[in-house]
Amino acid sequence: MQYFPAALQELSDQFARLPGIGGKTAQRLAFYVLSLPMEEAQNFADTIVAAKKTVHTCPVCQNLTDREVCSICNDESRDQGLICVVAEPKDVIAMERSREFNGVYHVLHGVISPLNHITQEDIRIKELLQRVGSGKVREVIMATNPDTEGEATAMYISRLLRPMEIKVTRLAYGVPVGSQLEYADEVTLSRALEGRQEI
Amino acid sequence: MQYFPAALQELSDQFARLPGIGGKTAQRLAFYVLSLPMEEAQNFADTIVAAKKTVHTCPVCQNLTDREVCSICNDESRDQGLICVVAEPKDVIAMERSREFNGVYHVLHGVISPLNHITQEDIRIKELLQRVGSGKVREVIMATNPDTEGEATAMYISRLLRPMEIKVTRLAYGVPVGSQLEYADEVTLSRALEGRQEI
Repeated sequence: MQYFPAALQELSDQFARLPGIGGKTAQRLAFYVLSLPMEEAQNFADTIVAAKKTVHTCPVCQNLTDREVCSICNDESRDQGLICVVAEPKDVIAMERSREFNGVYHVLHGVISPLNHITQEDIRIKELLQRVGSGKVREVIMATNPDTEGEATAMYISRLLRPMEIKVTRLAYGVPVGSQLEYADEVTLSRALEGRQEI
Repeated sequence: MQYFPAALQELSDQFARLPGIGGKTAQRLAFYVLSLPMEEAQNFADTIVAAKKTVHTCPVCQNLTDREVCSICNDESRDQGLICVVAEPKDVIAMERSREFNGVYHVLHGVISPLNHITQEDIRIKELLQRVGSGKVREVIMATNPDTEGEATAMYISRLLRPMEIKVTRLAYGVPVGSQLEYADEVTLSRALEGRQEI
């Protein structure tokens, strides 16, 4: 026997399909939406459709945008010859927060991950090669996450870029600012030693 | 500076308003919705509006339904003189799973909770009194949660029902079936002793 009205059950099922949302949480969210005024529920629904309709990837850097070309690629004051390669749109935000980078980005939308069946064809490497191939790029900074898959992806891409005779760099490894040496792991410490700089 | 397209930020904000969903999770959900095919995103949006439009409370028992009167209240084979009072629609489901109860329900939509500013006016007590006042009810079983607020609500309602000269009962307290005595708390054990029955 079905205890919930069909429409409520369906809403709960929709929430349960979202990543990290289990059956009980989905039910709770569905009840919450039902408790909203009609206007706010309609607003929620409209926002989903609007986001899906207006947001797309920038044809240049592949970051998410609602304009034809994203605001960073369109910014004349930024160095279009310096590309920072990141895995996800949220990494662009992290880089921008540092206020140190004045180049442009390239968002891969993932990293190569054989375990998750994500190959080099599934992420935006081809687009990066085309951009670099256009000849206006001086340097590519690899800024994928410093974990196994991020490293492997950076290595793979840098090997593809080597014949193009541009500078390919990687974010420095080292001890995080504000951290304590006693809690730094061995690998980070040995990388920090290797990369030591004169003061 | 704004790093996300406005529509994406707005979708993320909408998710962040849901109970138990923080900023980071909301962002992840918004990205997920963007990654869906247009058809599925539209479907999600439609489901929200459809649930909100078709689901309402049953005018008799206050449970959620998409019919005029809910299927339980409408069921001629059920004992309309026996009302089980529960706090939430999901408690109806829990009771129905036991397959032991053949009466009807009354859903309060909450319990009296001074700490959360929920008074007796905010839950569906008035509707219960009207139902009982109609004269067709023999017995009311209080089945709110066995916690402080559930108990207090049950006590409050039973006091209101006393002048109406009907039987008012409470679910039995005792050791849960399948549990182990060594882990039962003192209060549960003493209630189980008090309520002991001949075998």
